[in-house]
Amino acid sequence: MPLQFADRLKNCETSAIRELFKLLDKPGIVSFAGGFPDPAMFDVEGIREASAKALANEAGAALQYGATEGYGPLREELAKFMASKGVAVAPEGLIVTTGSQQALDLLGKTMISPGDKVIVEGPTFLATIQCFRLYGAELISAPIDANGVDTDELEKLIAQHKPKFVYLIPTFGNPSGALLSLERRKKVLAMAVKYQTLIVEDDPYGDLYFNAVPPPSLLALSASVPGSRELIAYCGSLSKVLSPGLRVGWMIAPAELLTNAVMCKQFSDAHTSTFAQATASQYLKAGRMPATLAHVRKVYAERAAAMGQALKRELGDAIEFTQPQGGLFFWARLTGANGKMSDANAFAKKAIEQLVAFVPGAPFYASNPDASTLRLSFATADVAKIEEGVARLGKAL
Amino acid sequence: MPLQFADRLKNCETSAIRELFKLLDKPGIVSFAGGFPDPAMFDVEGIREASAKALANEAGAALQYGATEGYGPLREELAKFMASKGVAVAPEGLIVTTGSQQALDLLGKTMISPGDKVIVEGPTFLATIQCFRLYGAELISAPIDANGVDTDELEKLIAQHKPKFVYLIPTFGNPSGALLSLERRKKVLAMAVKYQTLIVEDDPYGDLYFNAVPPPSLLALSASVPGSRELIAYCGSLSKVLSPGLRVGWMIAPAELLTNAVMCKQFSDAHTSTFAQATASQYLKAGRMPATLAHVRKVYAERAAAMGQALKRELGDAIEFTQPQGGLFFWARLTGANGKMSDANAFAKKAIEQLVAFVPGAPFYASNPDASTLRLSFATADVAKIEEGVARLGKAL
Repeated sequence: MPLQFADRLKNCETSAIRELFKLLDKPGIVSFAGGFPDPAMFDVEGIREASAKALANEAGAALQYGATEGYGPLREELAKFMASKGVAVAPEGLIVTTGSQQALDLLGKTMISPGDKVIVEGPTFLATIQCFRLYGAELISAPIDANGVDTDELEKLIAQHKPKFVYLIPTFGNPSGALLSLERRKKVLAMAVKYQTLIVEDDPYGDLYFNAVPPPSLLALSASVPGSRELIAYCGSLSKVLSPGLRVGWMIAPAELLTNAVMCKQFSDAHTSTFAQATASQYLKAGRMPATLAHVRKVYAERAAAMGQALKRELGDAIEFTQPQGGLFFWARLTGANGKMSDANAFAKKAIEQLVAFVPGAPFYASNPDASTLRLSFATADVAKIEEGVARLGKAL
Repeated sequence: MPLQFADRLKNCETSAIRELFKLLDKPGIVSFAGGFPDPAMFDVEGIREASAKALANEAGAALQYGATEGYGPLREELAKFMASKGVAVAPEGLIVTTGSQQALDLLGKTMISPGDKVIVEGPTFLATIQCFRLYGAELISAPIDANGVDTDELEKLIAQHKPKFVYLIPTFGNPSGALLSLERRKKVLAMAVKYQTLIVEDDPYGDLYFNAVPPPSLLALSASVPGSRELIAYCGSLSKVLSPGLRVGWMIAPAELLTNAVMCKQFSDAHTSTFAQATASQYLKAGRMPATLAHVRKVYAERAAAMGQALKRELGDAIEFTQPQGGLFFWARLTGANGKMSDANAFAKKAIEQLVAFVPGAPFYASNPDASTLRLSFATADVAKIEEGVARLGKAL
């Protein structure tokens, strides 16, 4: 039988990147393609202890159905975690989501009617583009530079399009690696108030800074911009700092939005795994997070430094990029200098032949893709592998 | 700011039942209201061992991002579990979902365009009604009796409405407790082929039989009805038999439907917790499930018997019901005999005053609610509590 699928599927496609990933199990390949943290850095012992404690002390709750809003003790720990990052929020002011991907899905389900406009960064997180399009959003791209979204352009787009909301990854964006400056953060908040526009702040990477602590999150800053706090929906995640496999994220948003998101979540998955939530809660309670973060920051800082040096050495003026100050990614552009390639897709194919992989940048744009861009992750390869991989990139180019 | 929410929220409401549940933490209350399994029956030791093994043997995979389709070793174990229930399916023929609630959500997201018709049982699972309505479905109720859905009426409705699909809980339905007879199962499959209509078989309770093994699932039977297998989407769950907190469900469906569901799931939650999946996989692999099922069946059978006897003794001809042969629920109707109440909502309020709770049946109907119906769960109260609770029902009536 030819099944008749929902119309919304016409707005969406399995990504080009997904196809590329199928090529990655070639033996000997060095991959800069993933968006994954390094599993060697998982605090397995800490998670084992936390999970054992959850089953010893609270098995009934950890294995039972739970509140759609999230497991009480975890909401308390997450509120404390946010407090450590300058955000005052009550446990009831946040809900737990099945990874921050689900927070995006709930934002889509709760907010987007077909034809609604949403402004995103160009480039932005691929799964955000597809997620919002499935709900019928028309996406509009705001340009970015090394300091994050161009706030002058953003203001023009908001005034012109009156979007349902603006979606930003202000701190070490994916794929851009960019850090929105303090000055621009303040402008974004002022804009939210001026145009009464909801701002979605996706912040999975904010804790992964290498040296200087980044400016406060938009949510933290909103305390000092009257009227802005009620215009921010903040998405947090343990995936990049502790473990993606737990699938524990959270959302802080205006009360009415949270209420509707909880109603939608009830029919999406009832609640996030209480087993994973109780484990995450015990982990945070045990106080292991600061040491884990310090370790992760140190290792990623070394790898980012190594990749930056290697790229300059091996690719010279054929490539341009801003050295990231945190996160997992280099965002680069092929300059075409000296007759070298400037098409990242063609470059990716040559690179695979040389047993090194990265992701071309074009799919990260909701509109007007820049075909010369690419994303390189330094998260999962150690320094030696990074140097070997970048040397192969040099050969491929 | 008055946020503008998506139009789809207008099709949905937080349930009346949710409000009722807020009254349930009165001290001393006996609750027959929940749809939860009894946490005292969770095999905590088995889950602890399984989780420890997952972290000892496969921590990298259990804590990392995983395939949207599901964790390979779990898909293999679930295929074996289905084989033990008479269904031949390859691991690639099923996907893991975040509880079977997510399977319903993915069916909605993948299949339902606003205005599409879906036939459900009247009464049916409350979260299904709301889940499909959020995607804009127009629900049509097919009547049921003690042998499940009335297949003659169902055929008329299919012929008349040409629905996107038919949603059934054929085995110990929620809330009906009804068991679809073998004869009617065959008719449903024949109907699927005749009208080329997709049938969704939701089967969270099929393993919870008390004495006789129930007829095979529609999916198992489809092997003997040519052309029907490709018209079944089957939803399974570990929630009622092992632990809801793991949030591990699965869906078996035609390949094209699974492919689209995986694409949608990618943007819903990326994947189900790999930590929970690896734990479930180790649990199934350890071979503990048969003993767990035997234990759960025995305890629930005792409670169902006790509740049936107590209802007859305490409420007499003021109530009518069919003794369930499995599952978690009694579905009953107030007869109004001898001038007793026949409105289940009014009865629920009186019952709460007597410190006993159940759920009125009306919200379980997508249309034409029967206000005299009610659902009683015998899952979480032991035999003594059941007798005490039903005696209080007698007083309340």
